[in-house]
Amino acid sequence: IMSKGTVVLAYSGGLDTSCILVWLKEQGYDVIAFLANIGQDEDFEAARKKAESLGAKKVFIEDLRSEFVEDFIWPSVQANAVYEDRYLLGTAVARPCIARQQVEIARKEGANFVSHGATGKGNDQIRFELTCYALYPEVKIIAPWRIPEFYNRFRGRTDLMEYAQSRAPADLYLMTKNPEDSPNTPDDLEIEFKNVFVGSPCLSLSGKHGVGRIDIVENRFIGMKSRGIYETPGGTILLKAHLDIETFTMDKEVRRIKQGLGIKFSELIYNGFWYSPECEFVQHCINKSQENVEGKVQLSVFKGQVYILGRESSKSLYNEELVSMDVQGDYDPCDASGFIRINAVRLREHHRLQGFSSTKQ
Amino acid sequence: IMSKGTVVLAYSGGLDTSCILVWLKEQGYDVIAFLANIGQDEDFEAARKKAESLGAKKVFIEDLRSEFVEDFIWPSVQANAVYEDRYLLGTAVARPCIARQQVEIARKEGANFVSHGATGKGNDQIRFELTCYALYPEVKIIAPWRIPEFYNRFRGRTDLMEYAQSRAPADLYLMTKNPEDSPNTPDDLEIEFKNVFVGSPCLSLSGKHGVGRIDIVENRFIGMKSRGIYETPGGTILLKAHLDIETFTMDKEVRRIKQGLGIKFSELIYNGFWYSPECEFVQHCINKSQENVEGKVQLSVFKGQVYILGRESSKSLYNEELVSMDVQGDYDPCDASGFIRINAVRLREHHRLQGFSSTKQ
Amino acid sequence: IMSKGTVVLAYSGGLDTSCILVWLKEQGYDVIAFLANIGQDEDFEAARKKAESLGAKKVFIEDLRSEFVEDFIWPSVQANAVYEDRYLLGTAVARPCIARQQVEIARKEGANFVSHGATGKGNDQIRFELTCYALYPEVKIIAPWRIPEFYNRFRGRTDLMEYAQSRAPADLYLMTKNPEDSPNTPDDLEIEFKNVFVGSPCLSLSGKHGVGRIDIVENRFIGMKSRGIYETPGGTILLKAHLDIETFTMDKEVRRIKQGLGIKFSELIYNGFWYSPECEFVQHCINKSQENVEGKVQLSVFKGQVYILGRESSKSLYNEELVSMDVQGDYDPCDASGFIRINAVRLREHHRLQGFSSTKQ
Amino acid sequence: IMSKGTVVLAYSGGLDTSCILVWLKEQGYDVIAFLANIGQDEDFEAARKKAESLGAKKVFIEDLRSEFVEDFIWPSVQANAVYEDRYLLGTAVARPCIARQQVEIARKEGANFVSHGATGKGNDQIRFELTCYALYPEVKIIAPWRIPEFYNRFRGRTDLMEYAQSRAPADLYLMTKNPEDSPNTPDDLEIEFKNVFVGSPCLSLSGKHGVGRIDIVENRFIGMKSRGIYETPGGTILLKAHLDIETFTMDKEVRRIKQGLGIKFSELIYNGFWYSPECEFVQHCINKSQENVEGKVQLSVFKGQVYILGRESSKSLYNEELVSMDVQGDYDPCDASGFIRINAVRLREHHRLQGFSSTKQ
Repeated sequence: IMSKGTVVLAYSGGLDTSCILVWLKEQGYDVIAFLANIGQDEDFEAARKKAESLGAKKVFIEDLRSEFVEDFIWPSVQANAVYEDRYLLGTAVARPCIARQQVEIARKEGANFVSHGATGKGNDQIRFELTCYALYPEVKIIAPWRIPEFYNRFRGRTDLMEYAQSRAPADLYLMTKNPEDSPNTPDDLEIEFKNVFVGSPCLSLSGKHGVGRIDIVENRFIGMKSRGIYETPGGTILLKAHLDIETFTMDKEVRRIKQGLGIKFSELIYNGFWYSPECEFVQHCINKSQENVEGKVQLSVFKGQVYILGRESSKSLYNEELVSMDVQGDYDPCDASGFIRINAVRLREHHRLQGFSSTKQ
Repeated sequence: IMSKGTVVLAYSGGLDTSCILVWLKEQGYDVIAFLANIGQDEDFEAARKKAESLGAKKVFIEDLRSEFVEDFIWPSVQANAVYEDRYLLGTAVARPCIARQQVEIARKEGANFVSHGATGKGNDQIRFELTCYALYPEVKIIAPWRIPEFYNRFRGRTDLMEYAQSRAPADLYLMTKNPEDSPNTPDDLEIEFKNVFVGSPCLSLSGKHGVGRIDIVENRFIGMKSRGIYETPGGTILLKAHLDIETFTMDKEVRRIKQGLGIKFSELIYNGFWYSPECEFVQHCINKSQENVEGKVQLSVFKGQVYILGRESSKSLYNEELVSMDVQGDYDPCDASGFIRINAVRLREHHRLQGFSSTKQ
Repeated sequence: IMSKGTVVLAYSGGLDTSCILVWLKEQGYDVIAFLANIGQDEDFEAARKKAESLGAKKVFIEDLRSEFVEDFIWPSVQANAVYEDRYLLGTAVARPCIARQQVEIARKEGANFVSHGATGKGNDQIRFELTCYALYPEVKIIAPWRIPEFYNRFRGRTDLMEYAQSRAPADLYLMTKNPEDSPNTPDDLEIEFKNVFVGSPCLSLSGKHGVGRIDIVENRFIGMKSRGIYETPGGTILLKAHLDIETFTMDKEVRRIKQGLGIKFSELIYNGFWYSPECEFVQHCINKSQENVEGKVQLSVFKGQVYILGRESSKSLYNEELVSMDVQGDYDPCDASGFIRINAVRLREHHRLQGFSSTKQ
Repeated sequence: IMSKGTVVLAYSGGLDTSCILVWLKEQGYDVIAFLANIGQDEDFEAARKKAESLGAKKVFIEDLRSEFVEDFIWPSVQANAVYEDRYLLGTAVARPCIARQQVEIARKEGANFVSHGATGKGNDQIRFELTCYALYPEVKIIAPWRIPEFYNRFRGRTDLMEYAQSRAPADLYLMTKNPEDSPNTPDDLEIEFKNVFVGSPCLSLSGKHGVGRIDIVENRFIGMKSRGIYETPGGTILLKAHLDIETFTMDKEVRRIKQGLGIKFSELIYNGFWYSPECEFVQHCINKSQENVEGKVQLSVFKGQVYILGRESSKSLYNEELVSMDVQGDYDPCDASGFIRINAVRLREHHRLQGFSSTKQ
């Protein structure tokens, strides 16, 4: 039989994408399995064998760890990216990294199709597909979990992970220790920001100390609320350290504008728009804001919590003499009276004119 | 000698405002000492006696605890008010509460002057004075720490607190236990939000468990960076619980808009504009957004950290059936394909048109 | 034959929706034609007869003029609603008004279906359908221009209007005179804002004087750019007059926040989210901001342009004495020195610290 | 007698700054008069002679026309800078340009002082002085209109301009014809944007046709409302043309973000923060957004109004085929159904859950 064409499938080695691999072959496609290494704990060679045994024409296992940190995690750290005040966007940031490579393979292998195992109600399908369309506009996407013949056949399978999530969150965590069982003495560490962050070896301490677990209800892009249980040990430390060094070295008003851009960036990442003109634009702006954001932050991790101990930077805008209570220096406290009184002009007018009288212009 | 008039002084019982009391009398003013009880640990009667012995014409000690919670803390909780991503605005929220009462006393007692012990480089002078000007536009303000004759005389005095702050932060905390010394087993608690929050007795648990300590560099309104060490045990729990119940019950897009208003509100509070037309406006809007934000949040506190255990609400917008992977119900996953493809129209155009050709309209 | 059910069709009397009426009947539906009178120039009785002759089971012609002004135009005027800095949202505001009534009829008549003649690439389909889903979640929508059997059959027909638009814009305008042919002397008018605007009879002057024509490229919600030629004579005058009275009576900082909300509101209207939680929320906030926005504005219209001649209001915040150059009154110009110097603290630090040296906290 | 030092005075040749020049000499300063040519209609040689005859030690007349256009007007055009929806910021943009040069002269001439004739209630004092402090932090500023000995002596003088403004606006305009007296036939023109705008000769047409007059009430930085009557003929045309070409060539979502930055930029300019870290940052971001904003806009000017006739660009994102009603091409209208239905998920939930029932997570 004639092949319908070649599909590059984002393959995880798990049950879901294994089913999809087989089903795609049944439908008449040649399947290339693609498995990205972004640092997860995985037996990649076992996955390769499994894919081959299921009939994959080729298997690509690609080490994306350094580009994941440099091109995706680092901009997110610079943005202090947090979705809805709490979610650190771990998987959201991984999707475009993986899909970019998948598209790259599809182009190289002359494949017209890509496929993935994301469900039809989630965010990952969107993150995955918008990246594909943006980087390979002519690509055709096969999303089995949105195809009735597929999902009607496989729906019965109880999703164990989902089941577990709704019942026993404590057992779900893979990277973080339960804070009750974590060490009884803190560990101190130092993170340096300069072009990128340095201190990665220290980041494993955060898992050991149970840092970065959250249990939230979040708003998916498609308009549903869902419950999410996440652990982001390294991201949590990086966020706290970066917030600290940033406020230390960045002008107040630049910070305000950049804060707004960071919130926008977080929404774009969450919604899958990493590869969009606006995300590129916002990322450029945020990057510009970071020109002087460099220095070292000392932290302590203990029982799920991160404490800032201090910070230092050659680009600090903190001026101990200016802020000191005992030194006036160039600062004249009388100026503050004028500052306050001018700020009050409007407030006093507002108060007075509550007994209004007609004026005419 | 003729009195220059009557001053209502925000009196703390401490060294600073005691000096000011005496100095104001020296300058020829009658002094009314005013001490607000907003829940701090203080020997109010001792302070009364001290003020009287220093020559205060009258002493007012006023219990503002319930209005502080209802009129100031509650709106801040509703707003998820946080300044520069970290500071929970404890003192910033207390200032307008205290100054409002001080102005009230000044009006009742026919005093034309008010005074305070805030320094000439800080935020509190602004918070204090903008409130006074807004509520009593004709008032005259005496800020001794901005008057050369005063500060030149008293500057020599070493500010012990400042001294301590820069050297031994750990000893500064009054309300929170050091997490290393806090209990080795978590405590669970529940907070209910309905018109206001209920669960105050539980809030003392947060101090016991060392919740809410931060060490930050912040940007003052007057344009200086300063280091701040804060503890906000109750506020930290309320913030986490409120964020949780809010996302559970509030529409996604309302949340986005409200998040921006909350950031604005936080800046207004920090900068001293509690009594301003814009703060009143923003507070009204935020309050409107909270109409359905009610329910209970279960939390656990342990070693400085707060964990959300669960939430329930009769106004929940979480729909387990809609979000379930096993039930399609009214939701057709095929719609997601169209949704994604339409969102991609713009991205694909962007990609294609990078080899531009001239078009004309 | 069994009917497939009843459809309420938004009927215009034109060729498009007449085709749809007939086609729906062919498909086996009972069709109720609904024609809204929102003030357009139309022979409603002729349309009724046409619908009846084409086989409509019932015809509803409803006068929505006053609710269109009060519930839709007025909130847009209060918001200074403008999309992408130029488009006054005329049709965008009409859609939810019409669809609301259509859904009302569908419910009353027990119809499970609604239908419309909007195309598959435009904004109107979205505005129409989101309103229907929001107000009647179980409704089923038939959009023939997105159904291949329909559009493949009718596509051939050249869309004359489109054709005309791209070639001879000047002939397209129905409500506004060509400014070259408009009167050679201005007309003056006055608009009063109080709860709603008064001055409607005067609004027809704007068409006579050629006010409110634009030729723009705009961004549709679905991510395409399209060219639009619009005339909004009355809206243009109302916008200019409202902007004027608003700045006259509203606090500066409230105005800033409200300006942002107005932009958000405009996007929501444009994108079809009139009936959404966030639009309801924003509308509530904007409405709150308008409490003191009342008064009269005098204008002159001439050759396509609107000139403000003056304004008056009992709620004016303009204080001639305060702003006068010759009277100091309560305002001490020396305060401005302090105001400026404090604002400069940060700028001077920024300049000085460009030769950075390491500081440590 | 010993000189108190050298002052560089921003000199206009008019009565005000002539008084200041003499007064500064009386106070014991050496005065350098500085007059900037930014394109105003002025007899510069007469002004030089006047300054010399009044005792200026030196007179600098500097042609800043090209740097005014390139460094100040052009970024404002790129930003579509408009303050409070109406004011095009003409003078606000000129101040930092003039003050930059003044500071330059002060540094070169070893002057420790600068002075200006701006009043103590206006915006110009702030724009002027913030620029000076930002670029020359140690400078000392003499603002006579805020010094009691000066203003008490000169206040009596009736300010003719102010007087005129409040009584006969029509006579105030210098650059624009009264539209009633302007030509009875339109003129067409073309403006090209590429790195900077080209079409300056055509800009004089706008004055001839009476374009760009406004009469507004605005909010000054210091919290007062004031009435302003402005004419910005060239700026008005540039704004309309730039808005047009920008929407034609810029992605929709980039436009949204950039619109917000443009509003921020406008406020910064108005308030005098041209030389601030945040303005530099925003300007950089806006500049980035303009990378593809180039092309030609055809316009017609007539009786005070500007009409867009068409636009063309090699970077256009307008895709006639994509948007056409008659061609489906790659666009599948069925996708719009999914797009709309997913957007409606949240709206339908909102509607349904208004009869709430308790859910628990």
